[in-house]
Amino acid sequence: MDVPIHVADGATRVYGIIGDPIAQVKSPGVFNERFRALGKNAVMIPLQTKPANFDACMRGLKSLVNLHGILVTLPYKNSVVAHVDTVLPAARRIGAVNALRREADGRWSGDIFDGQGFLSGLRARDFDPKGRSVMLVGAGGAGSAIADALGEAEAADITIFDRIEEKGRLLVEKITQTHSKCRAKSSEPTVVGKDLLINATPVGMAPGDGLPVAVKSFDARLFVADIVPEPEVTPLLAAAKNSGCRTMDGAAMVAGQADAILRFFGLF
Amino acid sequence: MDVPIHVADGATRVYGIIGDPIAQVKSPGVFNERFRALGKNAVMIPLQTKPANFDACMRGLKSLVNLHGILVTLPYKNSVVAHVDTVLPAARRIGAVNALRREADGRWSGDIFDGQGFLSGLRARDFDPKGRSVMLVGAGGAGSAIADALGEAEAADITIFDRIEEKGRLLVEKITQTHSKCRAKSSEPTVVGKDLLINATPVGMAPGDGLPVAVKSFDARLFVADIVPEPEVTPLLAAAKNSGCRTMDGAAMVAGQADAILRFFGLF
Repeated sequence: MDVPIHVADGATRVYGIIGDPIAQVKSPGVFNERFRALGKNAVMIPLQTKPANFDACMRGLKSLVNLHGILVTLPYKNSVVAHVDTVLPAARRIGAVNALRREADGRWSGDIFDGQGFLSGLRARDFDPKGRSVMLVGAGGAGSAIADALGEAEAADITIFDRIEEKGRLLVEKITQTHSKCRAKSSEPTVVGKDLLINATPVGMAPGDGLPVAVKSFDARLFVADIVPEPEVTPLLAAAKNSGCRTMDGAAMVAGQADAILRFFGLF
Repeated sequence: MDVPIHVADGATRVYGIIGDPIAQVKSPGVFNERFRALGKNAVMIPLQTKPANFDACMRGLKSLVNLHGILVTLPYKNSVVAHVDTVLPAARRIGAVNALRREADGRWSGDIFDGQGFLSGLRARDFDPKGRSVMLVGAGGAGSAIADALGEAEAADITIFDRIEEKGRLLVEKITQTHSKCRAKSSEPTVVGKDLLINATPVGMAPGDGLPVAVKSFDARLFVADIVPEPEVTPLLAAAKNSGCRTMDGAAMVAGQADAILRFFGLF
């Protein structure tokens, strides 16, 4: 395809995605293609910092007046909230942020789009969570956003597991309070009687990672979703495909979020 | 020209150029073209921060483990030295840094390439400063590096002006100490008896800026160089062209530096 060269120059609007690790993230590719298609002089770059340096890093990044937005990925979706001046309602409910934008006055607003992106992906694959039974593994930033969105979408029940028991319990409480039609409880990962299994942990990202659940084969009626963006087929998704299940990978959630985030950035 | 799309992804090596203002800098365009030509998955982005935030900004940027190098432009070439772990000899002599690289152990080394780039540009235009008489306006980071390089190249004499008198005087002392064959003195800007006039201040960058010298026409034998990168033809260069002088613009210095900096970054 014959396309014009896209060159960052001094006037380029800069956007970044911060996380640790970072090489696996899909957002720079997805957003740079979208910027080009929209004719914007903008670039999305990966930003990796270690947890011990995260606060200093955010202070430094926020001082860059030509940095217009920051996406946030693992493990910083919760800890970034302290750096946001205006936390928008969904993000406040969930206690996590995955997109920040610089406002005209230099203050930073933050919102979370994981849940919205996840739901778009499910629906694009003809899976409507309404009235369904869900097993969610991982109650961090992404897991919380997904649980909140599934509550909004009136899933019948959500069972939540996090290896930090307190984290799982708190998310169950939150869903119970905010989404009365959805029964939430915490338990060890199980697929018995479930319609939808979701991995919202990094398990499957590192070579040699096993499965986030203790079973290796599934009922073919189970829908299996994994938020891990790389590899494309995690061990969990491989096992699900072997069992004949429908699946959704991490890239689908990223794609589902892109439109909403571009709108939040004022670029779409 | 039919060239492949260059898309930043999660594994892209990030380089930045920090300054204030930043929209006028040419380095992102120059380096992104070079990265593409060299087949490197790397991007150079503009980074703008205000002086009050510079130290916090540098601390944040240095914590980014996928940021491999930082170019430094006005007004930070001097103040950045405090953030460099290993200041290389030319930069130590000049007291200014315009390129930092992250070493394998996470420490940062800094060097200055302004002088080298400036000389390459002059020589590419068949002007050899050896034995010549020079008027240099501006004794900041770039001015100091240019004076040092002209001393190395055995210019006969350099007259230096800075609106902060102390700054000009200190640079004269430094050149006198380090380059005994080159007579350095400070005085108001003059072109009388000079072979080479150099503007190493930001004057000419902002709309409505006048000239960095008090005269509007020159002897046609004078060579006039301006380090301001944008506009391409500053008021000074326009006046010089009107007088029939040979000229060199800020872009030429950037181009002259690119090879040396790519080598410093280990990419060339």
